[in-house]
Amino acid sequence: MPKASGGKQRLSKKAYEAKLPALREQLVQLQVKLKDSPFKIVLIIAGVEGGGRGESINTLSGWLDPRGVETFSFHQATDEERERPLMWRFWRSLPTVGRIGIYAGSWYTETLREEAESAKTGPDLELGLRRIRHFEKLLSDNGTLIIKVWLHLTKEQQRDRLRELGADEDTAWRVSESDWHANRIYDRLARTAGHIIKETHRRGAPWTIVDAQDERARNLTIATLLLQRFREHERARTRLQSSGRAVTATTPLRPSGRRRLLALPLDQHLAEPEYEEKREKWLGRLNRLVREASSAKRSVVFVFEGWDAAGKGGAIRRLASAIDARDYRVIPVAKPTDEEKSHHYLWRFWRHVPRAGLVTIYDRSWYGRVLVERLEGFARPDEWKRAFREINDFEQQLTEHGIIVVKFWMQISRDEQLRRFRAREATRYKLHKINDEDWRNRRKWSAYEVAVGDMLALTNNAFAPWHLIPSNNKRHARLQILKLACQQLTTALET
Amino acid sequence: MPKASGGKQRLSKKAYEAKLPALREQLVQLQVKLKDSPFKIVLIIAGVEGGGRGESINTLSGWLDPRGVETFSFHQATDEERERPLMWRFWRSLPTVGRIGIYAGSWYTETLREEAESAKTGPDLELGLRRIRHFEKLLSDNGTLIIKVWLHLTKEQQRDRLRELGADEDTAWRVSESDWHANRIYDRLARTAGHIIKETHRRGAPWTIVDAQDERARNLTIATLLLQRFREHERARTRLQSSGRAVTATTPLRPSGRRRLLALPLDQHLAEPEYEEKREKWLGRLNRLVREASSAKRSVVFVFEGWDAAGKGGAIRRLASAIDARDYRVIPVAKPTDEEKSHHYLWRFWRHVPRAGLVTIYDRSWYGRVLVERLEGFARPDEWKRAFREINDFEQQLTEHGIIVVKFWMQISRDEQLRRFRAREATRYKLHKINDEDWRNRRKWSAYEVAVGDMLALTNNAFAPWHLIPSNNKRHARLQILKLACQQLTTALET
Repeated sequence: MPKASGGKQRLSKKAYEAKLPALREQLVQLQVKLKDSPFKIVLIIAGVEGGGRGESINTLSGWLDPRGVETFSFHQATDEERERPLMWRFWRSLPTVGRIGIYAGSWYTETLREEAESAKTGPDLELGLRRIRHFEKLLSDNGTLIIKVWLHLTKEQQRDRLRELGADEDTAWRVSESDWHANRIYDRLARTAGHIIKETHRRGAPWTIVDAQDERARNLTIATLLLQRFREHERARTRLQSSGRAVTATTPLRPSGRRRLLALPLDQHLAEPEYEEKREKWLGRLNRLVREASSAKRSVVFVFEGWDAAGKGGAIRRLASAIDARDYRVIPVAKPTDEEKSHHYLWRFWRHVPRAGLVTIYDRSWYGRVLVERLEGFARPDEWKRAFREINDFEQQLTEHGIIVVKFWMQISRDEQLRRFRAREATRYKLHKINDEDWRNRRKWSAYEVAVGDMLALTNNAFAPWHLIPSNNKRHARLQILKLACQQLTTALET
Repeated sequence: MPKASGGKQRLSKKAYEAKLPALREQLVQLQVKLKDSPFKIVLIIAGVEGGGRGESINTLSGWLDPRGVETFSFHQATDEERERPLMWRFWRSLPTVGRIGIYAGSWYTETLREEAESAKTGPDLELGLRRIRHFEKLLSDNGTLIIKVWLHLTKEQQRDRLRELGADEDTAWRVSESDWHANRIYDRLARTAGHIIKETHRRGAPWTIVDAQDERARNLTIATLLLQRFREHERARTRLQSSGRAVTATTPLRPSGRRRLLALPLDQHLAEPEYEEKREKWLGRLNRLVREASSAKRSVVFVFEGWDAAGKGGAIRRLASAIDARDYRVIPVAKPTDEEKSHHYLWRFWRHVPRAGLVTIYDRSWYGRVLVERLEGFARPDEWKRAFREINDFEQQLTEHGIIVVKFWMQISRDEQLRRFRAREATRYKLHKINDEDWRNRRKWSAYEVAVGDMLALTNNAFAPWHLIPSNNKRHARLQILKLACQQLTTALET
């Protein structure tokens, strides 16, 4: 852990004020530059009680242009937050690119507080720390500059500080019984904090321990750290951008996925009357299962992926017809909005994670990252390769929260696609469903097969398995989807 | 109230099914057209218990492409919703243009339920209805197609329907004690509903009473209504677009505002030491007042408007320095994002309405509608003229909810602006603060004076008055702002 200098010897008011004008000027310059940069800054100020988290944030905010800064502190989760996975509230707080988010405590607050109250036991703590590591890695990999400051005081310094604050009538309100409690259990908290810091001190998201004894030195240290890390980040980004792009998107990473895809028999037959009878049966069953999930406050996320014209729309329609319209929402995934583009690619999906007991149906999904973005070059090789892990982690967070994640890949043959494209072109009211891009994608069929194969192989987890749906026959495909949805829901509700 | 036909005589299953294919085809066509239209559809299905709101929504959803539809039903408000004005939850639910929002009950549900529970007394009900009228007028004025359906059953029909549902084991769960209660107090509810319907049956948002006795006829009637209203709406829009635009944006609507603006003395003097001493006093006072407001769960909204280079940024900085950084948020208002553009212009401001006890500082605001949008022609004359009332209504909703709305107009002379522009150009690190657009706006100074004057005259309400700040002298301006903020907060906290 790097310890930033400052604080050892007291900084005189005069020396402090002499440094301020240049420092503030540099901070303004930083913000002007940042505004046009393709990344954001996440600055976390954590540390011991009495270390002056609030004051240093206020001082720093005063030095910065408040129009480019947002400050967050997380107290009690709201009910909307409690009904979603832990990290949802942090995702939704993230600033857009070009801006600074200052976090008072942040994801660390709750983790440490729960430990202090012994509400979080060992394994829970480790899980929480893993979540944090993944979250910060994901942000940092995406270009976010993460700066984490831990304000440090010794037990005696903390005691003196609390006394000092308590003695002044202007600040006495800021010292609570829980602050004194923190001082009494200082050693235990310090051990836990040390553990947390050690476990989350990673490249891209390192901690800096700042001596909080001298307020002026502390403020200067934080501001200087911000300036210095920003400069380093800019330099590193420039190097990164000029580095190679030689990896080809069409080489399989894990050929077994593509083999599984190609081995799928596609030409089933199903007569209309048999289809209708069975459909009614499965729709009824699905309706009951979704209601059962809902009363158990379990949400369901359906993911539909597949070739153009594989029949996603029709299948979603049939599936949705089993659910009360007030309980589900279909999210059609097209081009991201400019607000969405200004965030990590998963942000737009986190946004729509359903409240407890509700259903979200994604018509295309986050898998666009490893399909179209991989093949069209919208994502760099390091980005789409990283995405497999990020996606697995995302889905794991959903399922750990009790959300049931049901994923379908609708597979048709290349010939069948051609037939359907032509039929669309021949039917006036289906013409809107086909455009040049569809034909363009079709020409890249075998490249897509590689990408789909990798996706199937690398994101096929027990907690969120892929269902491959042979879809040359629409009736058969729809029935399969209903059946597999019922099976997965049944299994999930038993656990 | 128009009563839609259907329901008087039973519709046979055969006759019903014969009509479906053509109807569904038309609905799909509607959605394809809507997707490229610059408006949205809000379809409200309300009515008596047992009238089949849920079923008809489910049927209609099954006929539509679910990717272009969102269905909403509003139960208990979440805590995030309760901490904001009543209409906030409805604002945030609105679909974007090109989409259909289907509302089960919607803003009517709560109003009617509270009346039934006698929780809402006469004046409250009237206020609620006024809110609804304003909300629907605002949406409809903005081009939204609003369709409101009231599903009607007589007392006897309702009783029979509840019995029927209760007798079938598949549907028995849908009949609750409160449904039977509704049947017992049918007459009273019908009177209230009649009143609500009458008071909210307006051009742009008319009710259609649909006989809910025969389910099949009911479903057909709703779908037909949707198709017919969509066609009418398309025709009306075409007429509207081709109508005149002759009104000039630079003629004052209410000259008194401009006179007030021009009469403002601008050249005050304030020495540095006197400024610093007074500033500290007012900052301290403001800090206490904001904390007091916060512990009373009162939010504060600050609005900063003024000429380019009038000193908004600096003033916001000083003001913000009095508030704990974790309790305020500055919203810099620049060009809307594409998601924001796809909504009513007030949507992006509703979005940021603070939770109870927090502070939002808008750096420019919704007043852009009657300033830049008026003068640059981004809004049509009917649009910016309407905006005065919409804005007053918006601010009234905030203040009625207990939010304190503090508005500043920072006024400088044209010469002073020139001096500041030149100074910016001469200072390297201020160069980013000046661009061609600033110079362009400056050339329209007298036109802007007209628009500012109208704004000051037409949106200067007792609940949210305008503070005019002479700002040629920056120190004087900042002090005035702190002082007036304190005064308004003090007054507001006493009431």
